[in-house]
Amino acid sequence: MLMRKGPLDPLLVLPEEMGLVTDLYQLTMWAAYQQHRPGVRGTFELWFRDLPPTRNFLLLAGIAPALAFLQELRFSPEQVEALRSLPAFAGLGEEFFRSLAAFRFACDVWAMREGTVVFAGEPVLRITGPIEQAQLVETYLLAVVSFSTLVASKAARVRLAAGDARVVDFGSRRAHGPLAACWAARAAYLAGLDATSNVWASVFLGIPASGTMAHSFVLAFADELAAFRAFANTFPDRTFLLVDTFDTLKAVEKAAADPHLRFLGVRLDSGDLLQLSRAARAILDHHGRQDAKIVVSGDLDEYRIHELRQQGAPIDAYGVGTRMVTSQDAPALQAVYKLVAVEEPGGVRREVAKSSQGKKTLPGAKQVYRESRATGVFARDLVLPEEAVPPQGSWEPLLEPVMREGRLVAAVPELEEARAYARSQLARLPERLSSLQQATPYPVEFRAGETAKGRERR
Amino acid sequence: MLMRKGPLDPLLVLPEEMGLVTDLYQLTMWAAYQQHRPGVRGTFELWFRDLPPTRNFLLLAGIAPALAFLQELRFSPEQVEALRSLPAFAGLGEEFFRSLAAFRFACDVWAMREGTVVFAGEPVLRITGPIEQAQLVETYLLAVVSFSTLVASKAARVRLAAGDARVVDFGSRRAHGPLAACWAARAAYLAGLDATSNVWASVFLGIPASGTMAHSFVLAFADELAAFRAFANTFPDRTFLLVDTFDTLKAVEKAAADPHLRFLGVRLDSGDLLQLSRAARAILDHHGRQDAKIVVSGDLDEYRIHELRQQGAPIDAYGVGTRMVTSQDAPALQAVYKLVAVEEPGGVRREVAKSSQGKKTLPGAKQVYRESRATGVFARDLVLPEEAVPPQGSWEPLLEPVMREGRLVAAVPELEEARAYARSQLARLPERLSSLQQATPYPVEFRAGETAKGRERR
Repeated sequence: MLMRKGPLDPLLVLPEEMGLVTDLYQLTMWAAYQQHRPGVRGTFELWFRDLPPTRNFLLLAGIAPALAFLQELRFSPEQVEALRSLPAFAGLGEEFFRSLAAFRFACDVWAMREGTVVFAGEPVLRITGPIEQAQLVETYLLAVVSFSTLVASKAARVRLAAGDARVVDFGSRRAHGPLAACWAARAAYLAGLDATSNVWASVFLGIPASGTMAHSFVLAFADELAAFRAFANTFPDRTFLLVDTFDTLKAVEKAAADPHLRFLGVRLDSGDLLQLSRAARAILDHHGRQDAKIVVSGDLDEYRIHELRQQGAPIDAYGVGTRMVTSQDAPALQAVYKLVAVEEPGGVRREVAKSSQGKKTLPGAKQVYRESRATGVFARDLVLPEEAVPPQGSWEPLLEPVMREGRLVAAVPELEEARAYARSQLARLPERLSSLQQATPYPVEFRAGETAKGRERR
Repeated sequence: MLMRKGPLDPLLVLPEEMGLVTDLYQLTMWAAYQQHRPGVRGTFELWFRDLPPTRNFLLLAGIAPALAFLQELRFSPEQVEALRSLPAFAGLGEEFFRSLAAFRFACDVWAMREGTVVFAGEPVLRITGPIEQAQLVETYLLAVVSFSTLVASKAARVRLAAGDARVVDFGSRRAHGPLAACWAARAAYLAGLDATSNVWASVFLGIPASGTMAHSFVLAFADELAAFRAFANTFPDRTFLLVDTFDTLKAVEKAAADPHLRFLGVRLDSGDLLQLSRAARAILDHHGRQDAKIVVSGDLDEYRIHELRQQGAPIDAYGVGTRMVTSQDAPALQAVYKLVAVEEPGGVRREVAKSSQGKKTLPGAKQVYRESRATGVFARDLVLPEEAVPPQGSWEPLLEPVMREGRLVAAVPELEEARAYARSQLARLPERLSSLQQATPYPVEFRAGETAKGRERR
């Protein structure tokens, strides 16, 4: 195997290797389509089958990285050689390998904007083109859009629960590997978090970086106050003291009472956060440190934050980690990517759908329309065949053309723009959906349109 | 920001960027250690705080990628410039930036072998060296070891439940992004799965690739049998037919009855897998296709596989996806990396531990010893101070030296070797631990050793 990585390879996926992050069957189907269905075009749609019980909505993310993937996707000569040596491809002729080497993504793509609120069954991405191409990209697209949306949707709940308190992503160490850590930071920021502890995400994506200190730092000094003084000396304007290494309130007292110690706030990482934050606040205030902030962390999620805020805990900022970046209560979304239409070389178009028990799908390319109230609040969605007459009134179509024959036809929003859009979307959620309780589902109607007459048409 | 990536960057972590996949505080602490604790050395240990209720053991994975990270870790001049522009580092002097640019990992590392069965509280990795260095690597190490172990531990349960049936990783599309997909494939194979659908993992890691066809392939043809014939024509020796696009048993009947159709087996992806596999088996046999295999997939995990096998379902292979690669029932492990000892420049060594409520840790560097019965079955573990007299009898130490001052001092096992080791480890599990039910915990004793006299010593 030419390209095999040894045990000491860093084992990261390089941009030029993205095409290999796919299921084997995407490539075997490529070969079979090529031999038996040449010139056939397909339309695939990506949607989320069901919402987890603890999600009233999803916040779409991952579209920009998905488009980057489509734009950059190639198979190098070395990769084609490596594929040749896989047993699955042993019997195939040259045409298959040549076509991979020559491949450039040449499909049309429609997508919703990152930051859009979406619901079960609504196509968020639609790809039309040579069927083997549109098929090939399934695995990577699903992994990107599904994971980004998973974290953004969880983070949106955290954002809503925290109100105007500051929330920082602290989850890098518990994400599903280093790339998941970086992508989770992006998705969480897109959903409205204020900052991340992840340096990569700060350097490359421009997300504000934030952090305090670790227990190890305190333990590295002969005594706690010496550790606090050292850190504050190095970072006179940025010091948050981690106070729960030994006895939380004694540490707060020591720090607050030290007239030479300058710090912005304290961080509580264990214990009863309500009681400790109240007591810490009192101590800080007693010493005239009304401006010192209280940051808390430790197994936090939207429920815990909501509870602390309901109880009036004097907490200024929340560090959220594991439960957000793994979407711990619902660690996977049922994202699917399904063929909905086939076009023969002669132009005859068939709408298709599988009808397996419990996993039915709706045939035909679709558009999603959303109606809002005069206040801007979302009222209901309507999913119609793509070519159907749009509904009358204040309906907004959510899928927009983004690529034509593999070339971008629309600007891809920068992260800040997507984040602003997400904020505006969350502000338009019906109140019941922004609560943490499971709500009556948002109404989404799937309707056959006026022009959709039967299964086969030109 | 020099290095900011635009919205159309593929957004992958490159090997030369690994050092930035860290929490901000690792770098701020670096600066503060440098100014206030120069020449101090620290020992950190990595362990899993608790096992999830649905895990009787963990299967350690991620050590090889962790060592690759430690070996390759650098900060390029461009990265140092980018860090300079982050507000957190605005006030720092040149020494900080110079030290990052000059940094090479120079710590001593002890680790358990990949594929080792481990339990809560047992250090699996120990790093000793300049405290700022040993601190710096925390975030990436945790992400790598924790995620790999998470999936390997889930996959080990799947492996045990499936007995000698074939099990294939089908999870790439639902993993937490494309890198998680590749790493999950590696961890699952290490834990004993037979193959993966992930092409990257097959090409680069040598894991056998496996796959069938998608519903879209069937839908792309005018009729189901035409799709089957086409695929079998392209892959005469490797065809598994996906039979549940419309009516599962009718599809099996059509395929089995077609004298010209050559296929290795059928795949059931929905419906009642017990009934359908029995009916499919009967149809295949009736048509003289006793050799045709039955593959099933669709929301499978160790419980479902166990149930199907208990019921005697005639299933030859299982495709396992979402629930395994996200470790859905326990999507995070409480992996921690804690400072346990500090050595002053003069050589005075202190053992340290934090004592926060509910999150206490044990001070001092440790070694883990395992005692086995004559049959080879694991009996109990003992965690002793590193320098304690080893226990007498058939105890095996599990932590081995792997790096000395940043240089490898032991061969890092190839994946196949780690997989063989994992298999031998799983074979030595006490029976109650290899069952799917929550078992009486395996006995692990933590003991202060004979030489560990008090808190401070040379």
